[in-house]
Amino acid sequence: MTTSAPFSSGPIGIFDSGVGGLTVLRAIREAFPGEDLIYLGDTARVPYGNKGTETVRRYSVNVARFLVERGCRALVIACNTASAQALDAVEAAVEVPVVDVIRPVSRYIGEGNARTVLVLGTRGTVASGAYPREIARTGRQVTVLQQPCPLLVPLAEEGWLQGEVPTEVVRTYLGSVLASSSVDTIVLGCTHYPLLREVIAQVATELCGYTPAVLDGGFHAARALGALATMQQRPVNRPGATQFCVTDDPAGFLGVARLFLGHDISAAEHVDIT
Amino acid sequence: MTTSAPFSSGPIGIFDSGVGGLTVLRAIREAFPGEDLIYLGDTARVPYGNKGTETVRRYSVNVARFLVERGCRALVIACNTASAQALDAVEAAVEVPVVDVIRPVSRYIGEGNARTVLVLGTRGTVASGAYPREIARTGRQVTVLQQPCPLLVPLAEEGWLQGEVPTEVVRTYLGSVLASSSVDTIVLGCTHYPLLREVIAQVATELCGYTPAVLDGGFHAARALGALATMQQRPVNRPGATQFCVTDDPAGFLGVARLFLGHDISAAEHVDIT
Repeated sequence: MTTSAPFSSGPIGIFDSGVGGLTVLRAIREAFPGEDLIYLGDTARVPYGNKGTETVRRYSVNVARFLVERGCRALVIACNTASAQALDAVEAAVEVPVVDVIRPVSRYIGEGNARTVLVLGTRGTVASGAYPREIARTGRQVTVLQQPCPLLVPLAEEGWLQGEVPTEVVRTYLGSVLASSSVDTIVLGCTHYPLLREVIAQVATELCGYTPAVLDGGFHAARALGALATMQQRPVNRPGATQFCVTDDPAGFLGVARLFLGHDISAAEHVDIT
Repeated sequence: MTTSAPFSSGPIGIFDSGVGGLTVLRAIREAFPGEDLIYLGDTARVPYGNKGTETVRRYSVNVARFLVERGCRALVIACNTASAQALDAVEAAVEVPVVDVIRPVSRYIGEGNARTVLVLGTRGTVASGAYPREIARTGRQVTVLQQPCPLLVPLAEEGWLQGEVPTEVVRTYLGSVLASSSVDTIVLGCTHYPLLREVIAQVATELCGYTPAVLDGGFHAARALGALATMQQRPVNRPGATQFCVTDDPAGFLGVARLFLGHDISAAEHVDIT
């Protein structure tokens, strides 16, 4: 079910395979400063993007159930691979509303004027066809091109966000697809990619001669979350708490989190669910 | 135990978190054309290189036990991260000899004339300090430098093995360490890196003004395996069989295996042990 929340209190649960979903957490925190949030990074099994559908569904249901057991009154799947491959499985497994990162931005595209959209994502997300399918469901006639970009995740985690290497990698991925089409909208179809938004926009501008719109599914997921009746709107009485959980040793997660979140976090709880 | 094999027949089991260990399998197949081999890629949990020690030990013991249950009479840990973090745990968990990819090449260095060694590896392998420790154990005075190179794994899996991007990535990783030292030996401390051997040697030559030796732990693991009493030496009566097992959907593994193995493989068995 996705339309009503059985609980009016309890935190919002946000999960991803690792750190990428922190860009979604950040968008949600900006939109809802008063909400309590629990983030779970399934770092013992990261990444999901190169794994098979059944495996991704099994892992996603496992972490979703954990968050509901922790009292979450709504879930956000802050991972494109899990959104593409496991949304229905998660919705079937839990009784709280589930927001993903693919449908909201797809609906936004369906309501707009885009004619040619380029989706950048992991191999898993691209192979799933979830973006073309969700955009088609809106009824609007939009050409949807897709480009898998496996190197962008490790580039983001390395913190190589500008300069020769990321520019040349993005140019390699975007070169032929932008040369042979009139792309007006680029979707950052992986939660890591907002870190590389600038270099992506810059290379696209160089290759197209104009700057396409660059959309981030995390921002639109936060908007979709806002449509749930129980969300605290501004102004808020007190700042919401944020709790971080990981399935692997927290050290690696804490080390790289700042890049994604914009500030350091001091602690993450190790949870043994894998 | 590592010195004698309780069984004189049965295959050799080789495991890695994913496809990288196929470079080790290849070295073993070249050395022992008559042996039956079982390769297990723990693709449902790949990679190990960015995960914590306890997690890597748990996964390694799990797959090692699976291979022994399949009748393997010796095991090769074809993964630097697992060799660095889980060798003792695997040796304690199984009763067959265990060969890893770190000790053999470290002993080779200990027997040679190297003075300054640069180990390239994943963050996990570098952080473990396994190479400096194993080389020190040989008693030879060798300076051991280390450089984590997280982008080389995805570059290898993308098949971007030469050209501007891999050259610039390798130059970024090797630049400062080679500028400030007299490295005579480079160790490819990750089973993916043999695919990038040429670009690594070429960049090292450009930066050093001479070509350091480039050592591959897989080759030396095959030699260490050959020291076990029960190995079939050439000539062989019949070509050995090779069986592939994976913990995730085989499709992704089959797609990328050729890059690592040098030829296509037609099938891999999905095993449900995760």
